[in-house]
Amino acid sequence: MNHGTALLWKRRALSSLSATRRGLPKEKMSENGIMSRAKVLTIDTMNPTVKKVEYAVRGPIVQRAVELERELSEGMKKPFAEVIKANIGDAHAMGQQPITFFRQVLALCSYPELLSDSTFPEDAKSRACRILQSCGGNSMGSYSASQGIDSVRQDVARYIERRDGGVACDPDNIYLTTGASDGIVTMLKLLVCGEGTTRTGVMIPIPQYPLYSAALAELGAVQINYFLNEEKCWSLDITELQRAVNEARQYCNPRALCIINPGNPTGQVQSRQCIEDVIRFAAKERLFLMADEVYQDNVYAEGCQFHSFKKVLFEMGPEYAETVELASFHSTSKCYMGECGFRGGYMEIINMDDEVKDQLTKLLSVRLCPPVPGQALMDLVVNPPQPGEPSYGSFIKERTATLSALAEKAKLTEQVLNTVQGISCNPVQGAMYSFPRITIPEKAVKEATETGQQPDMFYCMKMLEETGICLVPGSGFGQKDGTYHFRMTILPPTDKLKILLNKVKEFHQRFTQQYS
Amino acid sequence: MNHGTALLWKRRALSSLSATRRGLPKEKMSENGIMSRAKVLTIDTMNPTVKKVEYAVRGPIVQRAVELERELSEGMKKPFAEVIKANIGDAHAMGQQPITFFRQVLALCSYPELLSDSTFPEDAKSRACRILQSCGGNSMGSYSASQGIDSVRQDVARYIERRDGGVACDPDNIYLTTGASDGIVTMLKLLVCGEGTTRTGVMIPIPQYPLYSAALAELGAVQINYFLNEEKCWSLDITELQRAVNEARQYCNPRALCIINPGNPTGQVQSRQCIEDVIRFAAKERLFLMADEVYQDNVYAEGCQFHSFKKVLFEMGPEYAETVELASFHSTSKCYMGECGFRGGYMEIINMDDEVKDQLTKLLSVRLCPPVPGQALMDLVVNPPQPGEPSYGSFIKERTATLSALAEKAKLTEQVLNTVQGISCNPVQGAMYSFPRITIPEKAVKEATETGQQPDMFYCMKMLEETGICLVPGSGFGQKDGTYHFRMTILPPTDKLKILLNKVKEFHQRFTQQYS
Repeated sequence: MNHGTALLWKRRALSSLSATRRGLPKEKMSENGIMSRAKVLTIDTMNPTVKKVEYAVRGPIVQRAVELERELSEGMKKPFAEVIKANIGDAHAMGQQPITFFRQVLALCSYPELLSDSTFPEDAKSRACRILQSCGGNSMGSYSASQGIDSVRQDVARYIERRDGGVACDPDNIYLTTGASDGIVTMLKLLVCGEGTTRTGVMIPIPQYPLYSAALAELGAVQINYFLNEEKCWSLDITELQRAVNEARQYCNPRALCIINPGNPTGQVQSRQCIEDVIRFAAKERLFLMADEVYQDNVYAEGCQFHSFKKVLFEMGPEYAETVELASFHSTSKCYMGECGFRGGYMEIINMDDEVKDQLTKLLSVRLCPPVPGQALMDLVVNPPQPGEPSYGSFIKERTATLSALAEKAKLTEQVLNTVQGISCNPVQGAMYSFPRITIPEKAVKEATETGQQPDMFYCMKMLEETGICLVPGSGFGQKDGTYHFRMTILPPTDKLKILLNKVKEFHQRFTQQYS
Repeated sequence: MNHGTALLWKRRALSSLSATRRGLPKEKMSENGIMSRAKVLTIDTMNPTVKKVEYAVRGPIVQRAVELERELSEGMKKPFAEVIKANIGDAHAMGQQPITFFRQVLALCSYPELLSDSTFPEDAKSRACRILQSCGGNSMGSYSASQGIDSVRQDVARYIERRDGGVACDPDNIYLTTGASDGIVTMLKLLVCGEGTTRTGVMIPIPQYPLYSAALAELGAVQINYFLNEEKCWSLDITELQRAVNEARQYCNPRALCIINPGNPTGQVQSRQCIEDVIRFAAKERLFLMADEVYQDNVYAEGCQFHSFKKVLFEMGPEYAETVELASFHSTSKCYMGECGFRGGYMEIINMDDEVKDQLTKLLSVRLCPPVPGQALMDLVVNPPQPGEPSYGSFIKERTATLSALAEKAKLTEQVLNTVQGISCNPVQGAMYSFPRITIPEKAVKEATETGQQPDMFYCMKMLEETGICLVPGSGFGQKDGTYHFRMTILPPTDKLKILLNKVKEFHQRFTQQYS
């Protein structure tokens, strides 16, 4: 130890002493002789609610998939040539093409010099001009109002009115968001209060999209599970809602009811009658309704139709229409456009207390505004080319092609999976996922449990390692005890999806044999 | 009352009864005969931490400005022809032009058909191709990794290395964010824990950018104020930091120290020595350092230079470089690009515990990913045209023009404001704002207090009504008791800024006279 180091040591010893006096962790010496102070932020001293957050859609299985991709690219030998990520509803990543008109308008808004380019259609130019005129300094680089660009909110309101057969929509009730997730988290944030048995409880479906459980964990709210009925095509029973809320009233204050329709991960489409029943239930039990309707254009099954909660609410007459509090969420990420990366979305708020609305606006203002390109895209989704406009034909063609392909793939997925013994798949009525039930042999359950894994995680990890197919285990969404599932998107191109489904089939048979 | 209504009534009466039995608020009859249920979500039952949030930059004064704009557009007579929003750092809204190259690349990424358009320069095309190749399905519509696109993070890392004279930067430490605000809130979220006197305290400058106070209120963390020294050009004194932390240790657990450099709203640029002292202080007091460096290119005053906390930290040797935990934030919204609407940003994390890093990645994954167009823009900011590339000349010209104009306006603002008796303005060394101190006559203070307003809010509201100029009162940022300020951006075009400054001058003189 030279003189300088000795001095350093002395200083450290003094500093360490004073830390001890304050009851702080002592510094310690690391291998290279550098004093390693105990970190300020460690797993033991970080926010405990953050630790409770789980999000399976991008969990350990996806991390392993990314590793496998890297290993493949480094030339490592695997029993497969590529990793197929069927874990997340990421349409463009699976080869779905963006709507040409939308991207033309976005390019024009990004670089308005193109407005004088004669190769762009006139309707794209007029949309771009309208959007730019609503932007400060005619630039998407300006902040918008925190609630979103006025003209976009007006277009959203008119879209909702058309969608809902003329039920009025006030643009003041529209809030543009950073994807639907942002809106959902914001609404939950407003609702959380109380401690102990008065703590806010929020009812969510099981299986659920894990944004809900993650947000509730982070906010320290109480998650109240209601189970969808797998035997009846993942339908929602009011008796189950009643059971869940009755039990929950003993340990928390149930204040909100979340519905995902069409369902994620379960793909069911709710009937009009069911929605009415849910609204009546929410009114009776005094619950704030949150309707996650991001898959509103993704309805495939014959006889199924999307009914918005807003429309049904208003058709039930003023007793409900003027009292039940409802937030409904939509997004640019799903449906036929699949523009996840732009993080566009909106929420419509019905019957919210005026003072709370002011608080909501204030809260949103802290984050300044949702991304303006996402707002522009949301505008195009709610205000697409109209009959008679130059881009109408190609728009309809592209939209129809995408939705037809999805409908075909929904059917295909259900059919192929149901040919496999030990896999049973409800019809994929809507959304973008199948959520089949899988039989896992007891021997496999035992091996999984012994290695500290959920049996369906064990199953999915094995599938990933053997086939390169990345799915999400049902345990990430919640399921009835003793049942196992996985979520698989229907997004790969049809020919690829066929190969994928066959690989799943072969894997399941192999796995079953191995553990029988 | 007809039969149907009577039946309805009976049902309501029953339902009301059961609500009473459960101890819930009774329903009440409204004027139109519709039963009005007590709302689930009211100002009394909403999240109390949200209520505590304040964000003056978009507060009541801006709401009034928007109203005034509407009134003007409706032909109402006012003593001014237009409202000038000098309340927020929204460059494009004030007429600043976007960098052509950036927008060309964004257009190419939005609509890749343009890659075959010969009017676009080759370097724009190669940047666009590189970005698209990093996107799933070569589309900005795909989700990126939650931490951000790999190649963008690599470019950010190389930018930081260049900026910091070769200090190494690991792309794994880079997280792309939705503007800088998102990163700052996320880091604070990780840091919050404990209750009562062990509750996390976070040191913030006063005056501060109110995102900090808003986020701390929402998270229920303890805000620890340290005062910048207005007499010494808003400099940071270590003795003041020491005072603040010593006092705070009596009622909370100080865990983080936030620095804004260059300063917002105060415009000072920290010296290298000061940054060293702050780092030493943070090490000694065991504080996680958060360096808000979004104005790193906005340095105007002679003799001032931007020094990143990261660089200074690494130059202080391993004792600090290997131990002090630091998060540094940057954004696409400020500097010469001013692209606020795209919500692009990044944070660099130094010396963070590995387990906490995993938790951070998990937390970010719930919101899926930052907006991809914002990520693309961040990439261009850190990887602009290089010498020899076709767009280099015009890029440098545009960037220089914007920064020179800002420097000129910073000087102009300081000079004009200091000609007014009762206004005293520190040099605007950097960032985009002046934060002059104003003398408010006692009579005006009295009138404000009587109407329940902060005196500087009273002053700014009066200025808005009389001149159409929208500023933010100093009370929205925090200031020493008995002192008053306002924040004004230096962003309006020079000729407009001159008019604006003269109007401020005249208003102040009138106001002073009126209340003397």
